[in-house]
Amino acid sequence: MRATMAYGTRNGESLTAVRIERRDLRPTDVAIEITYCGVCHSDLHALREHGRSGPADLLVPGHEFVGTVSAIGAAVRTFAIGDPVAVGNIVDSCGTCDMCRRGQENFCEEFPTTTYGGQDRRDGTTTLGGYSRDTVVDERFVYHRPEQLEAASVAPLMCAGITVWEPLRQWNIGRGSSVGVAGLGGLGHLAVKLARALGATVTVFTTSPRKAEDARALGAAEVIVSTDTEALSAVRNHFDLVIDTISAPHTVEPYLSTVALDGALCLVGHLGETNVDVLSLLIGRKSLTSAGSGGRVHTQELLDFCGEHGITADVEVLPSREVNVALGRLARNDVRYRFVLDMADLDRA
Amino acid sequence: MRATMAYGTRNGESLTAVRIERRDLRPTDVAIEITYCGVCHSDLHALREHGRSGPADLLVPGHEFVGTVSAIGAAVRTFAIGDPVAVGNIVDSCGTCDMCRRGQENFCEEFPTTTYGGQDRRDGTTTLGGYSRDTVVDERFVYHRPEQLEAASVAPLMCAGITVWEPLRQWNIGRGSSVGVAGLGGLGHLAVKLARALGATVTVFTTSPRKAEDARALGAAEVIVSTDTEALSAVRNHFDLVIDTISAPHTVEPYLSTVALDGALCLVGHLGETNVDVLSLLIGRKSLTSAGSGGRVHTQELLDFCGEHGITADVEVLPSREVNVALGRLARNDVRYRFVLDMADLDRA
Repeated sequence: MRATMAYGTRNGESLTAVRIERRDLRPTDVAIEITYCGVCHSDLHALREHGRSGPADLLVPGHEFVGTVSAIGAAVRTFAIGDPVAVGNIVDSCGTCDMCRRGQENFCEEFPTTTYGGQDRRDGTTTLGGYSRDTVVDERFVYHRPEQLEAASVAPLMCAGITVWEPLRQWNIGRGSSVGVAGLGGLGHLAVKLARALGATVTVFTTSPRKAEDARALGAAEVIVSTDTEALSAVRNHFDLVIDTISAPHTVEPYLSTVALDGALCLVGHLGETNVDVLSLLIGRKSLTSAGSGGRVHTQELLDFCGEHGITADVEVLPSREVNVALGRLARNDVRYRFVLDMADLDRA
Repeated sequence: MRATMAYGTRNGESLTAVRIERRDLRPTDVAIEITYCGVCHSDLHALREHGRSGPADLLVPGHEFVGTVSAIGAAVRTFAIGDPVAVGNIVDSCGTCDMCRRGQENFCEEFPTTTYGGQDRRDGTTTLGGYSRDTVVDERFVYHRPEQLEAASVAPLMCAGITVWEPLRQWNIGRGSSVGVAGLGGLGHLAVKLARALGATVTVFTTSPRKAEDARALGAAEVIVSTDTEALSAVRNHFDLVIDTISAPHTVEPYLSTVALDGALCLVGHLGETNVDVLSLLIGRKSLTSAGSGGRVHTQELLDFCGEHGITADVEVLPSREVNVALGRLARNDVRYRFVLDMADLDRA
């Protein structure tokens, strides 16, 4: 086993530096020295839920991280020691179901193995995430990271980025498309950058008029304050795709009204129960849809696209020892637009 | 003005034969002798609502009918006297908005003029529908009816048919596609026939096991009783499109679970508020959508397709004097699959 350090908790309270062990390399495994790990809203949820129903395993969050290959298994051919890599929120899947065969391992019918809190398909151990100095991942779920991009800013592409990339691709967004983005946080700011780079004209919906300047700087052509009914009605039936990244429960009708004929409103922020008036879908044959994470093919495609277009997340980098500060501020939405932990201050064993 | 007879009511109670007047022909108008008119669920709704909030205009229902051209306006070039024609649920639209320009007059941003209970865009009179012996319609909303198809059975294509045709076309259903149809009534039985003719393999979901034989006779390859959770789970993530024609409020999750990656559940039966768990959309990037009626281009396309493939509705034809019997039985779902009124027993003036 390979010892390393990580930030973990058994009861969901503050994370502390703990010594953990990573498995010995299987033939198709890649060992990675982690340099940066993004702090995702899902990490907050996982910590809140952890240990609530009794004694629990160690939880090490982190499912969007980057690093460098430090060792490879005997059968690994696509990675070499020193390669810049990235890992997202799944590390294994059955590989044989219809979803896996279609390259959508994130929807694996046997449920994919999540990067943390999942169960290793071979030895049954609980997976430990990227708030750590080293890890070991099967090469199928390790991605080549464009070296020209600043490493810290690449980390959030692996979860926030791929989640908004999926609907942009599904709905064929490109030159001439109109895209609306509701909410300007970790997901929203990447949706703006990616849609713009694909050739779309982007409009940001926000509740804070003070975010208008930021939105324009990110590439939005227009900014609409969500409460401005006149502005909303001016874009009725307008957008080929609206990506709604708002995480609080909210009514979807105002955004749905701005979707064009045969277009879609894609909910990626709030993932609970939602109420919709079917007539709002009927008039214009509009679709209500969602997305989350991505499969292997699209994830590498996203990284390649970002490398080509120089796209990364806007991040605030904190030394990893401030992980609890980052989580606390994220819980208050005090971040612009994503926290990334610099793991260099954590010992490797 | 041109006098004719129709079935109408001022208070939503029983329909009685009444004398009405149709407008003198405008240059682009087509006069039609109506031979058959379908009885749609919407007619029941309209009758229930009519006159509830005080004295109202005469209501003459009927928005899926066929007949023969009896006269044409001076500028009409695409129709001649004696031509077999059909009319659906809209008779005018603004013609200039984005939806109209895209051939989706049914979604006209100024709201289309409905075939009955609408307001004529020129003279402001209330439109009177197809439970009548004669009518006058602008040629843009009159369609060429394939002569080889039995006229009575064509009428329901103009509302029930086009409503299910739209999602089949939007979701590119063809050879190799899998389509589910929930509910086997006026809309559902046409969805089965049309999907099958497009080359899809069709599965019918029904609550009545006794409908299995009918479903197979209509072209379904398989029939699943909606309460059979084992059968439902065998088709998890399976259908490119599920057309849900169930008119009563119901939970959409069981049907959504059967939709394939990037596929859609299209609600065309119940058009009120619906609750959906966004996670059911996320896993598989599924869409919840709806459709209703169609524009000019797709409506003529449907009629041509039906002519080519010999597709019509399964209907029960009643003499028009039994219109109240038909409505009463329809309200109890006692029809297989659509009532059509034979207008021959009604005087022409």
